[in-house]
Amino acid sequence: MTKKMILDLDTGVDDALAIALALGSPEVELIGITGTYGNVLVEQGVRNALALTELFGHPEVKVYKGLSHALKRDGFEVEEISAFIHGKNGIGEVELPEPTRTIEDQNAVDFIIESAHKYGKDLVLVPTGPQTNIAAAIQKDPSIVDLVDAEVLMGGALTQPGNVTPCSEANIHQDPYAANYVFRSGMPTTMVGLDVTLQTLLTYKDTQRWRATGTDAGQKLADITDYYIKAYETTAPKLGGCGLHDPLAVGVAIDPTLVNMLDINMMVDVDGPSNGRTIGDPDRLNDPHKTSKVCVGVDVDRFLKMFMDRITNLVANSTYTLVH
Amino acid sequence: MTKKMILDLDTGVDDALAIALALGSPEVELIGITGTYGNVLVEQGVRNALALTELFGHPEVKVYKGLSHALKRDGFEVEEISAFIHGKNGIGEVELPEPTRTIEDQNAVDFIIESAHKYGKDLVLVPTGPQTNIAAAIQKDPSIVDLVDAEVLMGGALTQPGNVTPCSEANIHQDPYAANYVFRSGMPTTMVGLDVTLQTLLTYKDTQRWRATGTDAGQKLADITDYYIKAYETTAPKLGGCGLHDPLAVGVAIDPTLVNMLDINMMVDVDGPSNGRTIGDPDRLNDPHKTSKVCVGVDVDRFLKMFMDRITNLVANSTYTLVH
Repeated sequence: MTKKMILDLDTGVDDALAIALALGSPEVELIGITGTYGNVLVEQGVRNALALTELFGHPEVKVYKGLSHALKRDGFEVEEISAFIHGKNGIGEVELPEPTRTIEDQNAVDFIIESAHKYGKDLVLVPTGPQTNIAAAIQKDPSIVDLVDAEVLMGGALTQPGNVTPCSEANIHQDPYAANYVFRSGMPTTMVGLDVTLQTLLTYKDTQRWRATGTDAGQKLADITDYYIKAYETTAPKLGGCGLHDPLAVGVAIDPTLVNMLDINMMVDVDGPSNGRTIGDPDRLNDPHKTSKVCVGVDVDRFLKMFMDRITNLVANSTYTLVH
Repeated sequence: MTKKMILDLDTGVDDALAIALALGSPEVELIGITGTYGNVLVEQGVRNALALTELFGHPEVKVYKGLSHALKRDGFEVEEISAFIHGKNGIGEVELPEPTRTIEDQNAVDFIIESAHKYGKDLVLVPTGPQTNIAAAIQKDPSIVDLVDAEVLMGGALTQPGNVTPCSEANIHQDPYAANYVFRSGMPTTMVGLDVTLQTLLTYKDTQRWRATGTDAGQKLADITDYYIKAYETTAPKLGGCGLHDPLAVGVAIDPTLVNMLDINMMVDVDGPSNGRTIGDPDRLNDPHKTSKVCVGVDVDRFLKMFMDRITNLVANSTYTLVH
């Protein structure tokens, strides 16, 4: 049975790669993309999601707009570092034609709740930005934590330092309260954090394969991704590539055998110097029922092969032609 | 072949339990106790080690005094919380007779270096306080990191918050620089931190078994440990017992199958808000050669049975009689 997947994205560059991997994977059906804020404003994110699904030849994927800022905050502004990494438009300053479709009337939170009731254990939620929409959905309808199969999130860092503060990873940092709420809600969560995503690296040599397909989709995706790889040369000069953060979450949702996981009850620090840290919850350390799995190891070669083969195949077969 | 063990202790209550477990374990020979500061001043710690080895009927164990404060600091004072947990004298305000022996003339650092050369892969180092002595030994003779079997340390917290700050565990907090130095030295280290030691809990019911042996050793060890359990009722009221920190390190050194371990290159933050945090070293994340193992799961029942059976047997057979 094909698993239904909802991607909850702040569509920047690696979110684009997550979309591509999901669309290129026969094991899952991408039933919708819900938009959040982070790499870009929510409005820009859903616009990018619409444009990218069309670029990849999948205009059937519906896009839903979600909340525009953290649950306990009044607003949101894109951080300078986000614009540096993803480009101001979120997709590496690459121009894509105006999408032919618009977002759905239903909001993201209601779509998540409705889908949880409709698909139950056949549904996996994959948020790769702040978990604001997921937390809001659980707050509105707590029953969904027992309905869905799981949430596989990109975010956090358990065994590695953070990337915006020594303790905090960017997605969690955007809304620590929401992430903590989800971890403690009982929702079965799999955390795909910096522990593993900084092990799965992409280089210009890889993106060249997409460009070599000769399609508009391959060309554009390579251009978008090269911007991101270029930014990593400044932000993480020793790494030797860009981290495949968001697509790894999609990969793990499809095939959990790609990673080694630790069963642990997680929480997020919501104040103090370690604000935004993802860490084991001491109050549930000795509770034998564990609600989270944290990825602590990854089969890098196997994931990279899956990632490259599927996305290269997707863009090679996209019949979308850019309006020049 | 019997493994040689050096315990490097700031002898407080759980250090006393570590001594007892080592002495009660036929797989290891305790060739010496090196003294550090932490729960108590180094002078009090070595005095306690001398008194306790006699209490347990093992006056043959030699005790060596080590450094009195952190490598990058000028002095050391016992924290109030340490005195609260271990008693001002480190052993729960229980009075033990003046030891019949004194400390060795050789200092702890030189004894560690000499033993590394003498026993090589048959030697395991088990520090359960700050790692000042071990770091100083490596600084003086870097060759020992390749000579010894391993260092199995009690300290740190990778998947749980710290116990003196949100990020830092007490032993590491005493000398973050030393701990970082050891982790990055190439020494094969096994970290037994709060991740597992707060899972292995002792209660008054357990210590009653020692008292019930009718020996002076059983009575005194029960009194010492009850003070510690009592302190935990205040410091960790929800835990339901005291954490068996230091003895678990001894247990893991004897039988690594008691725990699940994660292969990871570790470091310690030595400044900033996360000062004293034990965390994966991002510069060595993608280095396939891992120098540390971090315990992330423990077979609680099997360790507790080993711990209780061996220590009960030790105190039951101690012929030491207190001078009343």
